[in-house]
Amino acid sequence: MATATRTRTARGGIDLGGTKIEAVVVDGRNQVIGSARRPTPTTGGPRDVAKELARALRDAVADAGLETSDLSGAGVGSPGAIDADAGTVSSAGNLPGWKGSFALGPALEAELGTPVTIGNDVSVATEAEFRLGAGRPYRSLLGVFWGTGVGGGLILERKPWLGRGSSAEIGHMVVKIGGARCGCGREGCLEAYAGRGSMENRARKYVDQGRRTDLFKLMKERGRTRLTSGVWAKAIEREDKLAIEIVDTAIGALGAAVASAVNLLDIEAVVIGGGLGIRFGQPYADRILGAMKPHLFVDENPPAVRVAELGDLGGAIGASLLARRTAR
Amino acid sequence: MATATRTRTARGGIDLGGTKIEAVVVDGRNQVIGSARRPTPTTGGPRDVAKELARALRDAVADAGLETSDLSGAGVGSPGAIDADAGTVSSAGNLPGWKGSFALGPALEAELGTPVTIGNDVSVATEAEFRLGAGRPYRSLLGVFWGTGVGGGLILERKPWLGRGSSAEIGHMVVKIGGARCGCGREGCLEAYAGRGSMENRARKYVDQGRRTDLFKLMKERGRTRLTSGVWAKAIEREDKLAIEIVDTAIGALGAAVASAVNLLDIEAVVIGGGLGIRFGQPYADRILGAMKPHLFVDENPPAVRVAELGDLGGAIGASLLARRTAR
Repeated sequence: MATATRTRTARGGIDLGGTKIEAVVVDGRNQVIGSARRPTPTTGGPRDVAKELARALRDAVADAGLETSDLSGAGVGSPGAIDADAGTVSSAGNLPGWKGSFALGPALEAELGTPVTIGNDVSVATEAEFRLGAGRPYRSLLGVFWGTGVGGGLILERKPWLGRGSSAEIGHMVVKIGGARCGCGREGCLEAYAGRGSMENRARKYVDQGRRTDLFKLMKERGRTRLTSGVWAKAIEREDKLAIEIVDTAIGALGAAVASAVNLLDIEAVVIGGGLGIRFGQPYADRILGAMKPHLFVDENPPAVRVAELGDLGGAIGASLLARRTAR
Repeated sequence: MATATRTRTARGGIDLGGTKIEAVVVDGRNQVIGSARRPTPTTGGPRDVAKELARALRDAVADAGLETSDLSGAGVGSPGAIDADAGTVSSAGNLPGWKGSFALGPALEAELGTPVTIGNDVSVATEAEFRLGAGRPYRSLLGVFWGTGVGGGLILERKPWLGRGSSAEIGHMVVKIGGARCGCGREGCLEAYAGRGSMENRARKYVDQGRRTDLFKLMKERGRTRLTSGVWAKAIEREDKLAIEIVDTAIGALGAAVASAVNLLDIEAVVIGGGLGIRFGQPYADRILGAMKPHLFVDENPPAVRVAELGDLGGAIGASLLARRTAR
């Protein structure tokens, strides 16, 4: 009977990232009772991605000692443009072969035999921090996900603010007119200075110009092909000058963009998540606040700036909240 | 009897600007039935300002063929930090001798014998455009008041968004890290490029560097001591190269900051008001939209960008809406 009670309230959550897929199973109190991780496919197309998502969730379900039929539902936090009603994902440029719109929700429901709801990855991660993490004490907050790109989520008066469906693109706020070219093709975006992808491009450019750094040596030592958050953290620990300079620039850009958002919205709190945000932790959240201060219009009353509490699983836990809302 | 009906619903509204005071009397349908304008005192202190506000409203009441005792109440849109409950105004640096907090509401009530409510100048002007002007068709909008400084107001889901009391400071969003010094002391703010005050400082600096412009000749011809909106408009009409260059820079900065706000909030509309905004009109609102486009993340669906419809009286009409809310 105890098992029956538990299984009725268990829900799945999947965070679909550009690099990895995180899946969790949570109980009725939103506690993680199972988890799994798989790399995001780098070849193939949406169907292959959907299969990997299903595998990751099945692994998490097994980790929880359950079966997928025990879930009341599952949610997916996905990049790209989401149509929640249709369960479709489009404009997901970081995913392999994802051209046009793909009905990810229906595909996963067929694979898993449980209702699946799709949401925006950073929106669900922000809501998770607001409801269960570092954002609990606040009514209004900005989530800043500092990773490969820089994503954002907004909670205003305890509700997600979605605008016309594409809000909180803090990574594409302009911090420097006529500034660096962003991966999105625009100029002077925050992400052009603070996205992990842009930071890596900048490091490669400096190396081509003859500057010294251990970043790429550390990358190879760790068997990586990209400058991961762990590589950046290690390089800084070793006082690698180039790494420090690039991270300082990123923090300066984050400070300017987040301060601009605060000057516009006067929110109570900022929650810093994402691969780099979580890896660097509260000391770097404090540094971001330091970089905001010269730009804050009401400088005697800055918002709280907190590192995300739910860590790497925040996105998947947030996705599981989607299932809660729609489960029958 | 007709007069009695009209007088019961008449309300006063006063816009307290750094340069001038605009006062209106409106009827129950928010139609302006009387108006007056006085220069803002440049010497003295808050009591002198309060006296001029009272004079301006009395003039507007006389213009409407009424007496102040006929008003059901009055509102004031003021710069600075407002405590609406106490009726106090502080941090109003542009007003003469305004140190600390002054109880403007009670002082005006004593002068006028009618209930007085104080609100933020740009917030009330934004609400006026939302309820009665260019913002009527929209549920969410950003008001941008392009004048001596650059102020902002936010309406989200049909309600003013005030944050913790100091929202919508779009003039102090950062458009250029390490950029020009702003009048507020910070670096790279929108206002440092687009505020009329900063534009004038820039023009003077260029003249000191030996560049030619008719701006200051036009200023003197018009008997002005500052580069007013009219002077800028005339210089551009005459194809003054320096004036065009400075206005182009201002428009570029407005485009970047407003696009950043749209990328963050995904609002439906932007309403451009303020001295320069209204003087330049819809063609320049269109140019601001043009300058936003390279920075808009969802570039196929830009917000509407409209010039304010209520013109120079928008602030005073907005202030009269404060009285409506609190009138007994």
